Amino acid sequence: MKKITVSNSGLQVADGSRPNVANEALIEVSISGICNTDLEIVKGYAGFQGTLGHEFAGIVRESPEDKSWIGKRVLGEINVGCDQCELCMAGDSRHCPDRTVLGIHNRDGCHAEFTTLPARNLIEIPDTVSDERAVFAEPFAAAYGITEQVEIRPDTRVAVIGDGKLGILCAWALGIKTQHLFLFGKHQSKLELGQLGNAEGVLADDFERFSGYFDVVVEASGSESGFPMAVELVRSKGKIVLKSTFQGSPVWEAWKIVVNEISVVGSRCGRFQPIVELLGDKRFPFEKLITETVSLADGVEAMRLAGEKGVMKVLLRPESRD
Amino acid sequence: MKKITVSNSGLQVADGSRPNVANEALIEVSISGICNTDLEIVKGYAGFQGTLGHEFAGIVRESPEDKSWIGKRVLGEINVGCDQCELCMAGDSRHCPDRTVLGIHNRDGCHAEFTTLPARNLIEIPDTVSDERAVFAEPFAAAYGITEQVEIRPDTRVAVIGDGKLGILCAWALGIKTQHLFLFGKHQSKLELGQLGNAEGVLADDFERFSGYFDVVVEASGSESGFPMAVELVRSKGKIVLKSTFQGSPVWEAWKIVVNEISVVGSRCGRFQPIVELLGDKRFPFEKLITETVSLADGVEAMRLAGEKGVMKVLLRPESRD
Repeated sequence: MKKITVSNSGLQVADGSRPNVANEALIEVSISGICNTDLEIVKGYAGFQGTLGHEFAGIVRESPEDKSWIGKRVLGEINVGCDQCELCMAGDSRHCPDRTVLGIHNRDGCHAEFTTLPARNLIEIPDTVSDERAVFAEPFAAAYGITEQVEIRPDTRVAVIGDGKLGILCAWALGIKTQHLFLFGKHQSKLELGQLGNAEGVLADDFERFSGYFDVVVEASGSESGFPMAVELVRSKGKIVLKSTFQGSPVWEAWKIVVNEISVVGSRCGRFQPIVELLGDKRFPFEKLITETVSLADGVEAMRLAGEKGVMKVLLRPESRD
Repeated sequence: MKKITVSNSGLQVADGSRPNVANEALIEVSISGICNTDLEIVKGYAGFQGTLGHEFAGIVRESPEDKSWIGKRVLGEINVGCDQCELCMAGDSRHCPDRTVLGIHNRDGCHAEFTTLPARNLIEIPDTVSDERAVFAEPFAAAYGITEQVEIRPDTRVAVIGDGKLGILCAWALGIKTQHLFLFGKHQSKLELGQLGNAEGVLADDFERFSGYFDVVVEASGSESGFPMAVELVRSKGKIVLKSTFQGSPVWEAWKIVVNEISVVGSRCGRFQPIVELLGDKRFPFEKLITETVSLADGVEAMRLAGEKGVMKVLLRPESRD
């Protein structure tokens, strides 16, 4: 575990806050969300040090490169590419080898009074979307992004493993595409939250009766047992989507992947643009995923709370916005 | 290790030889090849018992359903579907849930004087292809089958890990498609065998300088260290093809697959039809992959030989064909 502290630079892990980046938009953070990735970083993931946080809603206060942003309510794409390499030129800076990532890699994050991002990373929040709902943009985009990697049609049989925040958001996002969605988890109440429309919740102990049933299985549990379960649930020639980042080496029987010609697809971030309007869609009760909103000054305590069993989303609100 | 014996029913693992299957073509085996899968079966893989062997060339002696096959020199597709399910009807019995597999699953194999297969599984061997070369149909189809799962263009950077038989065949087959093929292995002499055309051999110790370089990495080493090496070699959003079946649970850092959005594709059998003519192509020195041809009566010894370090393909020839 690394040390976390709250200072003028926000909620920090280890040391190493950076000065604001010149020419980037300066955003006054209204609210930010603690993600499991934040908790993993404190455990050592990605070797990050500096200000944590990559989920936020805020208001642009300065924008040297494009003054039209000033005063607008925004959220932001968290990957900042070099803007010069082949990948960036093609419009996908998410895999730029020189990218920085808000609160994850070489860039201070948004659990702070202020954060910065290039103006090109900003997205205006529609009036139909509250700040609290806007905070879910990053994880909801990550969930919805699966549909850009794997074809999901109305008759595709989809399983989502994990009834935490990410699993529930995946169930919601994929439930837009298929009529056959099953969410596997360990908690009846969370499963119910994930069941929108025709989706069905299944207690994970009961998974063996679905052996080989699914065309697509999304591993969103973040636990080492999730992957072997996915291998069991997926049909021959089916696809497993690995969604959650975690430290660890799942044990798996490689021969099953070969003999059944299964594909395993790693999936990280999604694009924000396709989901911004969906954040205002009242079918999705994002508010129910919020366990508590905590003052940024109590950020260390909030991180502890976010790591407790059964706790869903914990939000941080800077003092001045109370 | 299970017990292996040679009897009238051929080279058998454990007990359990079956009678010839009624109505199927009866094939007099001219020669058969020992595959690593045979060795894995003896270690316990697939729980098989009965006559081993799934690589052969032979002559049809009986064919109740289609007499036109009688007297023809043939090889055979090893998966026998139920011929009634959705997958079989669509022409791909390789994943039929009720399939039997020659010498691997619920069907006696071809390390014997005679073997049987449905007439629909037979493929006539062209005159340009010797029996010895025809034995390589199954592994070469398995190698070439990768090109049907993953797009490989002339400019695709491809790495093959493993300089055993399977790795070399993969290097040959994929080298037809790309100008950028690198074969990674531990033995200079085997690497040289794999280097056809523009292909390059690299000693595996030296792999780190290729970190993140490849669009497609084929794991054909059959060792637990092959997969972590593949994860290191593949670029972001690249593809890893898992080719070798083995007992074991490779250790891997799951987060790399997620963060770099890598796809892992399991790959087993390929279709035989596309490669039958290629078996006669003199660019491919299949004969150099044959370490020894042994009498079927000495099959137990041949299996031991096939398992020795440095040994490539061992062929079995029934007594009467000596």
